[in-house]
Amino acid sequence: MTQGRFSTEVYAQRLATAARAATDAGLAGLIVTPGYDLRYLVGSRTQTFERLTALVLPSVGDPTIVVPRLELASLRESAVSELGVTVRDWVDGEDPYQLVVDALGEAGLGGAGRATAVTDSMPALHLLPLADVLGVVPVLATEVMRTLRMVKDAAEVDALRKAGAAIDRVHARVPEFLAPGRTEADVAADISEAIVAEGHSEVAFIIVGSGPHGADPHHECSDRELQVGDVIVVDIGGPYEPGYNSDSTRTYCLGEPAADVASRYEVLQRAQRAAVDAIRPGVTAEQVDAAARDVLAAEGLAEAFVHRTGHGIGLSVHEEPYIVAGNSLPLQEGMAFSVEPGIYFPGQWGARIEDIVIVTSDGALSVNNRPHDLVVVPVGSS
Amino acid sequence: MTQGRFSTEVYAQRLATAARAATDAGLAGLIVTPGYDLRYLVGSRTQTFERLTALVLPSVGDPTIVVPRLELASLRESAVSELGVTVRDWVDGEDPYQLVVDALGEAGLGGAGRATAVTDSMPALHLLPLADVLGVVPVLATEVMRTLRMVKDAAEVDALRKAGAAIDRVHARVPEFLAPGRTEADVAADISEAIVAEGHSEVAFIIVGSGPHGADPHHECSDRELQVGDVIVVDIGGPYEPGYNSDSTRTYCLGEPAADVASRYEVLQRAQRAAVDAIRPGVTAEQVDAAARDVLAAEGLAEAFVHRTGHGIGLSVHEEPYIVAGNSLPLQEGMAFSVEPGIYFPGQWGARIEDIVIVTSDGALSVNNRPHDLVVVPVGSS
Repeated sequence: MTQGRFSTEVYAQRLATAARAATDAGLAGLIVTPGYDLRYLVGSRTQTFERLTALVLPSVGDPTIVVPRLELASLRESAVSELGVTVRDWVDGEDPYQLVVDALGEAGLGGAGRATAVTDSMPALHLLPLADVLGVVPVLATEVMRTLRMVKDAAEVDALRKAGAAIDRVHARVPEFLAPGRTEADVAADISEAIVAEGHSEVAFIIVGSGPHGADPHHECSDRELQVGDVIVVDIGGPYEPGYNSDSTRTYCLGEPAADVASRYEVLQRAQRAAVDAIRPGVTAEQVDAAARDVLAAEGLAEAFVHRTGHGIGLSVHEEPYIVAGNSLPLQEGMAFSVEPGIYFPGQWGARIEDIVIVTSDGALSVNNRPHDLVVVPVGSS
Repeated sequence: MTQGRFSTEVYAQRLATAARAATDAGLAGLIVTPGYDLRYLVGSRTQTFERLTALVLPSVGDPTIVVPRLELASLRESAVSELGVTVRDWVDGEDPYQLVVDALGEAGLGGAGRATAVTDSMPALHLLPLADVLGVVPVLATEVMRTLRMVKDAAEVDALRKAGAAIDRVHARVPEFLAPGRTEADVAADISEAIVAEGHSEVAFIIVGSGPHGADPHHECSDRELQVGDVIVVDIGGPYEPGYNSDSTRTYCLGEPAADVASRYEVLQRAQRAAVDAIRPGVTAEQVDAAARDVLAAEGLAEAFVHRTGHGIGLSVHEEPYIVAGNSLPLQEGMAFSVEPGIYFPGQWGARIEDIVIVTSDGALSVNNRPHDLVVVPVGSS
């Protein structure tokens, strides 16, 4: 498996932006252990757990990566050496937490009352001993990192568009997988192959919710056999090198839909469209959510829409910004998220339409471009 | 995929033991977020990250699991409902950290100066807000949990033996995958299929280190083509339901080995044997490490053995106890770990022999039972 990453320039810019954001936030620096933030900043996918690996970005001075000597090879795929990040390797017996504090420099030991921020995913195993050596409990880097990671740069937008095109190709093939008597699991197996065949590096998730199962937004798949007349929710995605995810939902119908299905689906389609049309810089996340919700409410379907309208996407499938009531975050150019209203009728059926969109100066750019209509799969008379 | 777990009685006993261990350690209780500890205690594989899921085991009173309402379904596969654990679900807007403190009961808020312990893997995202609500920084549950998890119960020993038998069946097939001109990656692909075909639920790791690549213990695989005379290190494993890992290394030779390979390999074989023979309750981890190292040192091969002798294994591939210099932990009946000395000659070749063993009252029981000899793979004259 070849695991791509972006050019060194992309990571150099991210490191500089992160250091600046930390300084602006009054922090002594950032400490980033393996996870999406580390992958975002230097392209490293290392997953070392028991022995500390940590990128240290002081507010003043150059970055250092503290890494177990045994795991030095895990940095090869990253941009660390091209970036000129100081590599400080350590062996069993050394105190890696002291190395982190040293790498923070003067700013480290609570100097000038400034806090040090740690990545969201830093495990207690490392956070608690680090807090001991620092002499002060760190704060979360969430705020600093989320702004960076929410606003996608050109390389990320390109990656998300490629992922979107790949999952569109899978959806184009889904009708051939659907037939009466096939189980949801059969269909999921075909989709799994198609996700990889169309260029994803792996499968992240597959929901095939047929008939009453479609009414559960968290259903995955089962041995239920498809029947003529079933409405089928297909929500699929996976990472595309260098690791940006696709996520798209279309709803299918095996044979012609019942009249109430068709009429309600049409409302859903308008709701999804209204949310996408509401998107532009400065509009808040909750306003986008409300735009979808209002259309459904006007047709008496408010109760049928039981989840948020969307979630950010990038290296992780679910990340900021969340498109949900209560989130007054103003959208910015470059943010990427799903717009995926759904309607659910427990025991009967459900439907959802989901595209990933990028916020541009003049509205939303969708990375998914399959039609939004309910996809009617003809049922042979044989 | 069917994901097994043990009987409810196994988890009931583990919960009781963990609560007792916490009390004995003077702790107010344990807080366990998703990860191996949660899987160990209640059989849950949930991986919720952004929204808090936490098992709360107070030193006095009954356990509670705090879980996002949206993720309630993720507990279905666990033993939570049969165990009578109180399920406290929460929705966006509620403060889940307060629910955790409530579930700790009187012991929670630093009462009587007792600390609360958190699982190693709890991410900063949850640990820092939890510390705020507790009013005191938690401590690591490492000590409490490691004793529990290091000493395998009968169900775990059985699971490890099944995993060991499965990886033995894979090693039995490895010679048919080795031939001049095939690449390490070709061989790894065949092994990957065999690992699953022989009963593992997935592949955890595959090392195929041929010729000079065998001298790097962390090499995985490459496009290097096998050549006649290559010494080939094959280190493979994966989880076997309900999730216990196999991990076994054998060394192969394509055609007859050179004289120095054969003689040095024989020393390695004696070193591995010496380490296994040293194992019994009360002997320390570092004594086992020394037993292997001494044999190699006596033959001038001390410098060629560049890593520790072994690592514990169970739900995770690497866990306590570590069989390494400086670890004075006395072995106990039921501990499971690898015994895997290796010799490495940079630029030339390497070899390793690895079995997983269980400590019993009268020595080591190996879960792997393939011969330890260098496996000579005949090379056709065609």
